[in-house]
Amino acid sequence: MTKLNRQWRLVRLVEGMPSLDDWRLEDRPAPEPEPGSFLARALFLDVAPYMRARIAPVRNYAPGVRPGEVMIGGAVARIVASRAPGWKEGDLVVTDFGFGWQEYALLRPEAVRRVDPALGPPEAFLDVLGLNGATAWFALFETGALRPGDRVLISAAAGSVGQLAGQLARIAGAVPFAVASTSAKLAWCRELGFEGGIAHRETPDLANALRALVPEGVDLFFDNTAGPIHDAVLQNLAPRARVVLVGTVSLADRLGRPDIGPRFFREILVARARIEGFLVLDFEKRWPEAWARLADLLRSGRIRTRYDVLDGLERMPEAFLRVLRGENLGKQLVRLAS
Amino acid sequence: MTKLNRQWRLVRLVEGMPSLDDWRLEDRPAPEPEPGSFLARALFLDVAPYMRARIAPVRNYAPGVRPGEVMIGGAVARIVASRAPGWKEGDLVVTDFGFGWQEYALLRPEAVRRVDPALGPPEAFLDVLGLNGATAWFALFETGALRPGDRVLISAAAGSVGQLAGQLARIAGAVPFAVASTSAKLAWCRELGFEGGIAHRETPDLANALRALVPEGVDLFFDNTAGPIHDAVLQNLAPRARVVLVGTVSLADRLGRPDIGPRFFREILVARARIEGFLVLDFEKRWPEAWARLADLLRSGRIRTRYDVLDGLERMPEAFLRVLRGENLGKQLVRLAS
Repeated sequence: MTKLNRQWRLVRLVEGMPSLDDWRLEDRPAPEPEPGSFLARALFLDVAPYMRARIAPVRNYAPGVRPGEVMIGGAVARIVASRAPGWKEGDLVVTDFGFGWQEYALLRPEAVRRVDPALGPPEAFLDVLGLNGATAWFALFETGALRPGDRVLISAAAGSVGQLAGQLARIAGAVPFAVASTSAKLAWCRELGFEGGIAHRETPDLANALRALVPEGVDLFFDNTAGPIHDAVLQNLAPRARVVLVGTVSLADRLGRPDIGPRFFREILVARARIEGFLVLDFEKRWPEAWARLADLLRSGRIRTRYDVLDGLERMPEAFLRVLRGENLGKQLVRLAS
Repeated sequence: MTKLNRQWRLVRLVEGMPSLDDWRLEDRPAPEPEPGSFLARALFLDVAPYMRARIAPVRNYAPGVRPGEVMIGGAVARIVASRAPGWKEGDLVVTDFGFGWQEYALLRPEAVRRVDPALGPPEAFLDVLGLNGATAWFALFETGALRPGDRVLISAAAGSVGQLAGQLARIAGAVPFAVASTSAKLAWCRELGFEGGIAHRETPDLANALRALVPEGVDLFFDNTAGPIHDAVLQNLAPRARVVLVGTVSLADRLGRPDIGPRFFREILVARARIEGFLVLDFEKRWPEAWARLADLLRSGRIRTRYDVLDGLERMPEAFLRVLRGENLGKQLVRLAS
């Protein structure tokens, strides 16, 4: 009996802020497994800022989605039919990009990892035990070269990567500071061990607020947003500061258009600062290193993580816009009826 | 008999492009050596872009000159009276910052290096065997981590640091490209072994011209200028590109004012590029390493260097404005009547 597969297909490439009608929901028959593949049904669909650049008409580090195609995305899913030896109905798997915004996907074993319930709940495999955990880990400890005592500023600090980065910085002997949109989010960051922070939507002069918060200057800036927060930090660098460009979510409404604003060449030169672009895919071979440590920290309760879950496939575009507008608190996910 | 010492004193701090009347020429009696010091008379006064930031009302990596003080600068000079044991009349010395825009300076041995005529002509100690040689060397080989085959773009390529950086990149197996203001300067760069280049004052669309010149993208950008050249390179980065911010001479007319223009966060992230501020003072303990190699290369004729010399102390402000406007070809100096 053929199952019905609802899926979100991209309508158009998007230059400004995406809107709900940039995708359309379609019904297709779910495919049948071929030899060596299995059909899986999503439990949780991932919702993440990287998806923004995949639908922009500009060069990116990876190919984009074309109009008419199913929107890209990862998922935690359960196998419902299998013709792949060793993978059986009921097994849980996670895939980072290869699922798509849909209920069912045909997958091959090399495109997924097993979900081991002993390590954490299924949704953690789209968060601390997935790409975001690896991002926080390698951006801090490799590209960022974090050292004990570093004053670490983290933007989008109440998001999935931000909340982890703050806790990891603290565990590693550094002093994390948060920038988040609202004081409700800051309260969560403080609970997680951030030293303090700035609610940027409630703060007219970010550069001065940051000077008051970290008078010694920022040693390591974990930049999840670009934009005005970046500009404020560049005016408050400690000597030899490191700036890791992890994400650019504040540019969600202008990809493909010029981003005009202040530049800080003298500040970079005077501080002898280093600004470096970070891409978690570059560390793919080493992700398991990070996950092993993160699973230990998660099990022992030394790191905590919050999820912001909407229910129902039909809410995917809405969930995605929440992330682009910074309305989520914790890792944004969409849960599918089981 | 007291000697007359003509000297340029700063009139005011400067926000925009400096003008000739920002300094005034005064006559003072030359000081007499005290025990442990000597009086030296300048043969060549240094003229360099770093001097711009020293007279700006903004934070810098070193203290600035205050109105009324003698303008900062280095010189090659001859000792004319000494009370420092081991330093005698007629000896040649070089000092990087501690001479000032004047004919005579009172110096202590720890503030100077000896000029060894066997290594090169006296003026080379303000160029390849001085700060600029060390800058080219450490910015390329340390901060820039130059590797054979790198496509290296050098701005202000016909200036003192630029002409050296291009030749050193070639010697180290890389492929240097020049950006200089005019085709006359580019011709000199080609003579030095640059692979090709762009005359930016004769090129309306820098980003496209650079794409045509280095279609594979720039691996290492030796940035002497900031400004529009920087903007063009950021749109033409090879994966893992390194950008070394060595100087910001194109900002000479706006220090202390915001520098508004396009920003390239996505480009940095997509290329996983690294942008790093460079300050030659950080490598002070290792300068002799560079000079030993550079002296060998100079003696063997493997590197050449050109000087752009004006005669007479009274021309110092004019010479400095030439540098800020990019009118010099090779290392700018002012020679004093001997």
